[in-house]
Amino acid sequence: MNDQRVYNFSAGPSMLPLSVLERAGSEITNYRGCGMSVMEMSHRSNVFLQIFEETQEKLRRALNVPDGYKILFLQTGASGQFSMIPLNLIGKTGKADYAVTGNFSNLAMKEAKKYGEIHIAASSADRSHTYIPSQEELDLSPDASYFYYCSNNTIYGTEWQSIPETGDVPLVCDMSSDILSRPVDVAKYGLIFAGAQKNMAPAGVTVVIMKEELAGRALPCTPTIMDYQTMIDKDSMYNTPPCWCIYMLGLTLDWLEEQGGIPGMERIKSAKAAMLYDCLDASRLFTCPAEKPFRSDMNVTFRSVSDELDAKFVKGAEAAGLVNLKGHRNVGGMRASIYNAMPAQGVEKLCEFIRAFDREN
Amino acid sequence: MNDQRVYNFSAGPSMLPLSVLERAGSEITNYRGCGMSVMEMSHRSNVFLQIFEETQEKLRRALNVPDGYKILFLQTGASGQFSMIPLNLIGKTGKADYAVTGNFSNLAMKEAKKYGEIHIAASSADRSHTYIPSQEELDLSPDASYFYYCSNNTIYGTEWQSIPETGDVPLVCDMSSDILSRPVDVAKYGLIFAGAQKNMAPAGVTVVIMKEELAGRALPCTPTIMDYQTMIDKDSMYNTPPCWCIYMLGLTLDWLEEQGGIPGMERIKSAKAAMLYDCLDASRLFTCPAEKPFRSDMNVTFRSVSDELDAKFVKGAEAAGLVNLKGHRNVGGMRASIYNAMPAQGVEKLCEFIRAFDREN
Repeated sequence: MNDQRVYNFSAGPSMLPLSVLERAGSEITNYRGCGMSVMEMSHRSNVFLQIFEETQEKLRRALNVPDGYKILFLQTGASGQFSMIPLNLIGKTGKADYAVTGNFSNLAMKEAKKYGEIHIAASSADRSHTYIPSQEELDLSPDASYFYYCSNNTIYGTEWQSIPETGDVPLVCDMSSDILSRPVDVAKYGLIFAGAQKNMAPAGVTVVIMKEELAGRALPCTPTIMDYQTMIDKDSMYNTPPCWCIYMLGLTLDWLEEQGGIPGMERIKSAKAAMLYDCLDASRLFTCPAEKPFRSDMNVTFRSVSDELDAKFVKGAEAAGLVNLKGHRNVGGMRASIYNAMPAQGVEKLCEFIRAFDREN
Repeated sequence: MNDQRVYNFSAGPSMLPLSVLERAGSEITNYRGCGMSVMEMSHRSNVFLQIFEETQEKLRRALNVPDGYKILFLQTGASGQFSMIPLNLIGKTGKADYAVTGNFSNLAMKEAKKYGEIHIAASSADRSHTYIPSQEELDLSPDASYFYYCSNNTIYGTEWQSIPETGDVPLVCDMSSDILSRPVDVAKYGLIFAGAQKNMAPAGVTVVIMKEELAGRALPCTPTIMDYQTMIDKDSMYNTPPCWCIYMLGLTLDWLEEQGGIPGMERIKSAKAAMLYDCLDASRLFTCPAEKPFRSDMNVTFRSVSDELDAKFVKGAEAAGLVNLKGHRNVGGMRASIYNAMPAQGVEKLCEFIRAFDREN
């Protein structure tokens, strides 16, 4: 790793693999001899269409996406999906179930209320979102158009450890902060979406993987760029897609394959998370608010014994090249986001810093 | 210019200044010593906020944006604005006027019909969009919530040469394909928008410059990310913005300033367009479909005497490093998009090629 680079524990946008950045830099004025940058290519040109299709194919391979599912590259952001999902899917029965286990599922739920009748099928608000409701705790509506949840809660540092079972009700999942970090049985889902800026690519592209048969039922007020059927029909090119971000996603997927694909990445991320949680559990000063069985392997939240000491920790870590460790303003404390691209050495350095801080304070 | 690079006449995404790409490449793994790429930065970090604010400021300076106007960096694409504009602005009276002078204003008009009563205040369809209606030809509605037009028609190669006068009805303009190429009196507009991928930055950011007082009237079904008031209140950061594209826009604006700002750019682009039109007018084989007073300085459409010869021209040009000259499928022929970043040498080379082709065929 380049000595001048820092370990960036930001919750997103966050680190990209250095080799991916270097590759992008090496071809930034002339992509593989075609005489122009990817940033300059017509999205309808053969050279870009090849990038586009290969990126779709790499993602399909990485996640074992079955036939009947479409992969879309959109510009809405994950927040745009909070609207796009009810606009397109709630028309079936006018109702949907939401599991509220953190900030973003709560925002998604509130947004959906604009478009239909929303039932909160589960909430972890009673214990400050420090846990994930069990299957038995889900209050499912048989007539819901879909069941919505967020698989990993970046702010609270919790992660669903199993896929909710909802019978015939299609599962919709926000995987923005843990996609590509562990195997996913896509066939169990109606729709998966993820903003790219945590585990995939720079901010600006949102990946949607959806069962095609769910499209085609958009409410009349749906903006055309938010109609899944339009985007399926046009293969995400109803309008100009975010070409550079799609290209970067393709490079990240190449890198992922070098790590052994998702199985390899799962081993790596589990080891990184275990190292960090073990270090925190062994400390005198630090505690993790998330309940143990639901701890996130992507966002490790922790705190010391006082706000003052937390601030000292964050400042000291920054001076040591471990940056963006401050917790979200909603919860305070610290948060180490250790997405796929965070090298194991970054977590090791953080553990060393934690141990030293624990000794010295 | 790097010998291996081509002259890319694509209608968009299109060329970026080589110096901008080189600058971006030089800091792609470590932005000015901060230890990370712009693609990896938290959008809430000080280092990114500085990029963001400076880019807003540079754009405000370049276009002389007056007080009371907000500059937004959104992810909708220009096509998303086709929905966002009526969703936010048509509520005032339920009605809007549209001037249909090409493909994109037509799409915008159709999309707006979802949200209110649309009156076609002018259309150039009667002469295949080869002209721009005059002020006298505008059939204005005094009770329109806004008047919408597209200042430059990329497909048909026509450009509005003056700003329509609409009294108290706010002007809304799609400037995607000619923004930053000529001075604009922003104070005459209610809202200006532009997709970045022609004259500003890579695809993925859409610039909106709007009179703040027009916001706050969104229809109830408006997706939150499409509510101007939300984006004004959050300074475009309701959700993660397309950071890399915003950074690239900032670099392009630095380059624009080196060219003498918009006044300098206007001289350069006028000279490039005059050179190309003069060359075409002097040829035996080629004609320009756009009527002379309305010719676009950004997209020069032309054709030879047959489809076969057009195809031969496009193929021969490509072999000479002059690429993407094929006209839009709706109109055929050729189109040379000569946006700000197209060097004068590119147009000179194209003129040489045209003259040789004219002699030899």
